[in-house]
Amino acid sequence: MKNSSPSFNALLASVPHIASPDQMQRHMSDMSGYEGAMPAVVFRPVSTEQVSAIVKTCVAENRKITIQGGLTGLAGGACADAGDVVISLESMNRVEEIDTIGGVAIVQAGVILENLCHAVQQEDWYFPLDFGSRGSCLIGGNVSTNAGGNKVLRYGTTRDLVLGMEVVLPDGTILNMLNRVIKNNTGLDLKHLFIGTEGRLGIITRLSLRLFPNPQTRATALVALDSFDHVTRMLKEARSALPDLSSFEVMWQSYLVQAALHANKELPFEGSYPIYVLLEIEGADKDTFHDGFHAFLEFLIESEIGRDVIVPQTLEQADSLWQIRDAIGEILRSIRPYVAFDIGIPLKHMPAFIEQVTAVLEKEYPQAINLLFGHLGDGNLHLTTGKLQEKEIFAVEELVYQTASGFGGSISAEHGIGRIKKPFLKYSRSREELDLMSAIKNLINPRDIFNAGRIVD
Amino acid sequence: MKNSSPSFNALLASVPHIASPDQMQRHMSDMSGYEGAMPAVVFRPVSTEQVSAIVKTCVAENRKITIQGGLTGLAGGACADAGDVVISLESMNRVEEIDTIGGVAIVQAGVILENLCHAVQQEDWYFPLDFGSRGSCLIGGNVSTNAGGNKVLRYGTTRDLVLGMEVVLPDGTILNMLNRVIKNNTGLDLKHLFIGTEGRLGIITRLSLRLFPNPQTRATALVALDSFDHVTRMLKEARSALPDLSSFEVMWQSYLVQAALHANKELPFEGSYPIYVLLEIEGADKDTFHDGFHAFLEFLIESEIGRDVIVPQTLEQADSLWQIRDAIGEILRSIRPYVAFDIGIPLKHMPAFIEQVTAVLEKEYPQAINLLFGHLGDGNLHLTTGKLQEKEIFAVEELVYQTASGFGGSISAEHGIGRIKKPFLKYSRSREELDLMSAIKNLINPRDIFNAGRIVD
Repeated sequence: MKNSSPSFNALLASVPHIASPDQMQRHMSDMSGYEGAMPAVVFRPVSTEQVSAIVKTCVAENRKITIQGGLTGLAGGACADAGDVVISLESMNRVEEIDTIGGVAIVQAGVILENLCHAVQQEDWYFPLDFGSRGSCLIGGNVSTNAGGNKVLRYGTTRDLVLGMEVVLPDGTILNMLNRVIKNNTGLDLKHLFIGTEGRLGIITRLSLRLFPNPQTRATALVALDSFDHVTRMLKEARSALPDLSSFEVMWQSYLVQAALHANKELPFEGSYPIYVLLEIEGADKDTFHDGFHAFLEFLIESEIGRDVIVPQTLEQADSLWQIRDAIGEILRSIRPYVAFDIGIPLKHMPAFIEQVTAVLEKEYPQAINLLFGHLGDGNLHLTTGKLQEKEIFAVEELVYQTASGFGGSISAEHGIGRIKKPFLKYSRSREELDLMSAIKNLINPRDIFNAGRIVD
Repeated sequence: MKNSSPSFNALLASVPHIASPDQMQRHMSDMSGYEGAMPAVVFRPVSTEQVSAIVKTCVAENRKITIQGGLTGLAGGACADAGDVVISLESMNRVEEIDTIGGVAIVQAGVILENLCHAVQQEDWYFPLDFGSRGSCLIGGNVSTNAGGNKVLRYGTTRDLVLGMEVVLPDGTILNMLNRVIKNNTGLDLKHLFIGTEGRLGIITRLSLRLFPNPQTRATALVALDSFDHVTRMLKEARSALPDLSSFEVMWQSYLVQAALHANKELPFEGSYPIYVLLEIEGADKDTFHDGFHAFLEFLIESEIGRDVIVPQTLEQADSLWQIRDAIGEILRSIRPYVAFDIGIPLKHMPAFIEQVTAVLEKEYPQAINLLFGHLGDGNLHLTTGKLQEKEIFAVEELVYQTASGFGGSISAEHGIGRIKKPFLKYSRSREELDLMSAIKNLINPRDIFNAGRIVD
């Protein structure tokens, strides 16, 4: 009686929802390939108060909740269990305020990332989060999974873009922490409990986000190199010489060949090199911007760090290079079933990790191709292995995660754990860490009402 | 019997310590003015295992622990209670590894910040944390208080510089989380429990820290402006035009006059202006670096955002400007008793906040002077008020914190809460937030064995 909550029928009468199996079909699964099941109902609340009311009723009636954003996740975190109450944030899609003095946006969690970026750009500011699913992912999902993307090197991960948030806890309590200042040292910074924990500890309903000056121009180049050692030297030089550096994307030769093929592009260089870096800078439009970039590229060739360079002369040519980098979707469709790894490896161990893991993969699974690319500035390596047989997948995952663990790596640099990587979490986190994570989960979400079965129990 | 631990006498026989009141005198208090008391013993462990052993024995014998670093804190967090067991990290002072490929340093928590910066620079990398106490503060204390400083605008707060850590929990468990990669999305990022919580949840024993390319050159300028509105316009233009921007320090006229007086410097400008910005960029040594800076300063004057500019021609002249900015210590000694506020205020509310709070202060405490300066790029305002009478201090604090709260501000942007600001925490954090902070404190530190009486109970 303490937590008075509406009955389930009262909720249905007051909160927008869908309950027909046809309409709920698309709310069963995300993009991970994990098979979700039919929920009982999909609520589409329009306010934080409605989210809180749903949660309180589910507590009272002992129902489980699956939280959903844009359903673009790659770890199965948004997939429903049979009979779940789904809370979809997609109707909480308002950009509430853009503070053009302080560079802060206050938004509801259900705003589509691309819409947020456009709204901010119209005020001549910039929100630098960017990745392939930008047109359908929701900012709340980006934060709850601490999404990465192409510009982490310059602006940080999603975590670094969050100034504050409003959260509904598993007992329905609303925590308003919509802080707007960068420096706020008043004890435990609670927002970090909810960033990257994929809805296990709370439902993010609103966010205050950090904005950046709107870059007026970009420049891109593709550099061919002789070895990974040259890449790490180039990375250090680039970070030092180019304060505007926004992307440092590495592609190994076999990836470039496959990607050009699938993107219907000619190979960019006449010759063939072991490894390539796609470099981007973004900043103010002034002479010194392009001069500094060209001087750096000349330095790379003169110092023999780089072997060859392509500098696109038009936006179309630059886009064409990015299309090669982004052709991974097309490649993956052609090598099903596959595993797409998203690993963090300390740079100094990356050559040894790659050598060791590809040697075993080539020996044990000779019919599969192994493609390598990554956001190297962040130690983030993508390895895709396919075609495999379904029954081989678990063993391939076990092999790669165990090897990564041996090199002090992370089994997920950016995609998260969800349901799919839960069996492998032990390769990234010690027994003591898992115990502490569980203890905090049990403190805040004791009845496992939010997103049961994900990350840790 | 489950947690076997050495007896207190066995600890004394094996762990370096001091126990004479003369020697322990300096371990009673930090730089906050809070009066600490005489501890029972000061342990100076040299290894994580020794820290863990001390904690386990204190659990078994029900003794309280105060954790100490360089004793430079301004919130009373390191001050001992009578009879405490003090654990001083000062002997755990090894830089264990500097990874020159990935740009990562692995260090013990007791390294003096300045020593760390020097060791990193010798390997041609850069650790950008910087503030006045650099010669005596310890990196573990910097992390546990999430210290701020002069370069947050460019490199973030201490939190952003921490890749991973090793921590001893209040039951003696050692958590090894010395992660080396920037992107690591594997559930709850536990390090954030220990950053900024001032030793309430664990003792940080080792750290992996993020390094940056070593800047080869710096440039400084002092700009005079007509109003705070011009300062916010200048900030946005500077962030956009100067990717190398590392400091944006604002001084109001009355601060500049007092500071020049106490630093024995002439006033930098012939005329008098309402407000000034000390600007610094640091980066690669190339023509475009200085050209871009001078072009920006010209733009400021042409666009009438700035009224006048001083560009030092020598390092000595630049140092002289920074000495004015840093003269706050000398000023404070002359206005005792004083309150030195360290507030976070959203930029758009800052003029209204300043107007409101100084009007009341001038009316109620006409004998005190109010000086304003701050790291404005971060929304961090320093206000110092003195001379006051001792009995007036609490009311002045109450007034300023309550007013800051009304503008969505933070009562501590960088100095932390400790013992001194604990009574005012309610002005920055809601009842629900304080409850959650307490619940987590009670989960991890249930017997209040670490740093009792700080932040929340």
